[in-house]
Amino acid sequence: MQIITTITEMRSCIQAARQRGLRIGLVPTMGALHAGHGSLIERAVRECGFVVVSIFVNPTQFGPNEDLAKYPRTFEADAAYCRQLGAAAIFAPTTEQMYPQPQLAWVEVEKLTDGLCGASRPGHFRGVTTVCAKLFNIITPDIAYFGQKDAQQAIVIQRMAADLNMPLEIRVCPIVREPDGLAMSSRNRYLSADERRRAVCLSQALQWCQERIAGGCTDASALIGTMREMIQSQGGRIDYIQIVDAQTLEPVLQIRGRVLIAMAVYIGTTRLIDNCVIDLKADEKVV
Amino acid sequence: MQIITTITEMRSCIQAARQRGLRIGLVPTMGALHAGHGSLIERAVRECGFVVVSIFVNPTQFGPNEDLAKYPRTFEADAAYCRQLGAAAIFAPTTEQMYPQPQLAWVEVEKLTDGLCGASRPGHFRGVTTVCAKLFNIITPDIAYFGQKDAQQAIVIQRMAADLNMPLEIRVCPIVREPDGLAMSSRNRYLSADERRRAVCLSQALQWCQERIAGGCTDASALIGTMREMIQSQGGRIDYIQIVDAQTLEPVLQIRGRVLIAMAVYIGTTRLIDNCVIDLKADEKVV
Repeated sequence: MQIITTITEMRSCIQAARQRGLRIGLVPTMGALHAGHGSLIERAVRECGFVVVSIFVNPTQFGPNEDLAKYPRTFEADAAYCRQLGAAAIFAPTTEQMYPQPQLAWVEVEKLTDGLCGASRPGHFRGVTTVCAKLFNIITPDIAYFGQKDAQQAIVIQRMAADLNMPLEIRVCPIVREPDGLAMSSRNRYLSADERRRAVCLSQALQWCQERIAGGCTDASALIGTMREMIQSQGGRIDYIQIVDAQTLEPVLQIRGRVLIAMAVYIGTTRLIDNCVIDLKADEKVV
Repeated sequence: MQIITTITEMRSCIQAARQRGLRIGLVPTMGALHAGHGSLIERAVRECGFVVVSIFVNPTQFGPNEDLAKYPRTFEADAAYCRQLGAAAIFAPTTEQMYPQPQLAWVEVEKLTDGLCGASRPGHFRGVTTVCAKLFNIITPDIAYFGQKDAQQAIVIQRMAADLNMPLEIRVCPIVREPDGLAMSSRNRYLSADERRRAVCLSQALQWCQERIAGGCTDASALIGTMREMIQSQGGRIDYIQIVDAQTLEPVLQIRGRVLIAMAVYIGTTRLIDNCVIDLKADEKVV
C-alpha cells in the first residue's frame, strides 16, 4: 500500500492504475477510522481494482467554534487498517497541498444545505462539497463511497455530482453500529464512560420511532415530541430532531413516501448525529 | 465532424477518442462564431488530436434583463465553420440536457467576480463557472481554450480550475480584432451601421491609453478620465472603465507591474467589452 502526500504523486499513481485498466475507488475520510469507514473500504475493494482512502482533516468544513484542532488524528492505526482491508493507497495531503493559496472557488449546493446540520453548522457543507470536488478532480474515481451516517452529506454530494455532471458514481453505504446501537463515529472517542452509556439514546429513539411508524403512526410532530423526551431524559441536549422528505430534506407533517428521520444531539460537549430512512412503499415516489 | 446533442453520446465519443490516444481540446462557445472563436479552434486543432466545440447559449449566465432570448443563433454557419477549421465534434446540447432538474449545485469564485462585469451582471459569473465545470466534467478536455476578450472570465476560469484542482489546462488566446480595431464579438451584429462606426472608440481609447503608459504616464485616474471623454464624445454610454491589477482585479492608482485596462460600454443598446493587458516589466510580479 502506498502512502501519498502530494497531488502530483497522487495523479501519477492514478495514471499508472488507469494504464493497468483498473477501476478507481475513493473513500474520502478525515481519518480516525472505525468500522463504519471499514465497511466503505471493504465494499470499495470488492468493486474496484484500485482503492484510494483519502485522509484529510479538512479545515474549510469546520466552523470557528468547532473541533478542528482537537479532531482525533490516528494516522498509524488508520494506515494499518487500510492496509489490512486491501486499500491500494492512502492519500494524506497537508493543508498546504490542498489549499496552497486562499481558496476563492467554492462548490455550493443550495436548499439541501439550508436545514438539519446545515442550519447549525454554517459553511460546513460548502467546505465538504468543495473538498470533495477537489478530491474527485485529483483522484478521478469511478466510484466514491460515503456513509449513510452523514445522511445530509450523502444527499448533498449526490446532488453536486448530478448537477455538475461529475463523471463518477456516488455509493452510499449503511450505518455501522456498535452492539448497543450507537452509530460508529470518530467523535465517539470524545465520550466519557458515562456519556458513552447515555449516547445510546439516539439510536434507541430512532428505533422506537421506526416501530411506531411500522405500527401505523404518521404524525411527525407527535413522534418528534416523544423522541425529544427520550433523549432529554438521558441528559442529551438536542440540536435538532427532524422528519424530512428523503429527497428534498423539507420537513413533513405526515409520514408518507420516503422520509429521513435525523437528529443531532450533544452528549456532554460532544455533538453526535444519527438517522434512519423509512420507506412507506404504498406512497413511494421515484427519487 | 460529428454533431452531438446528448451528454451520453458525448461521453462515448470522448471515450472512443481517448482509446485512440488522442488529446482532447475543448472550445466552449455560445455559437454565433466569428474569427475570435476561429482563432481558438485553430489553436486547439494544432495542439489536440480531437477538438470539441461546444455551442450552448447558457441561460444561467444571463440576467433577467439581458439578451438571452435575442442572442444570435446561427447554427448552420457555425457548424460549417467548425468543420472547415478541423473540429472533430460539435457538442450542442439542449437546455434540458444541461439542466434536467432545478440546478442546486453551483461553482462560485469569490472576490475576482465582485468588480468589472461582475458588478454590472450579478450572477453572470456563477452561471459561467457552473456551466464550464459541467462541460469540463462531460468532455474531460486536456486543454480548454478561452479568449482574452472576456478577460475577467478567463481569470475567473483559471482560478476555478486551480482552486478546484481540475485536471486540465486553461489556455487564454489573444483578442482578434476587425481591421479598424473593434474586438470581434457575437454581439457586434446587433450594431447599426452608424453604431458600428462609433464602436471603434473602445479600442481607440485603449490604444491611446497604452501609448500614454508607454510614454511614462502612471496615473490611472487621469488615464481613465480621458478615456471616458473619448468614449462619451462618440455617444458611448460607459458601464465601467477600470485599470486593475491583472491578477487580483483590484483597482490600481499607479500603473505598475501587470495591469488590465478593461471597459464595458453601451453603443446604442448594445453592451460591448474590450480590454488590454500591460506589463511593466521592471516591477513585474509572478502570477
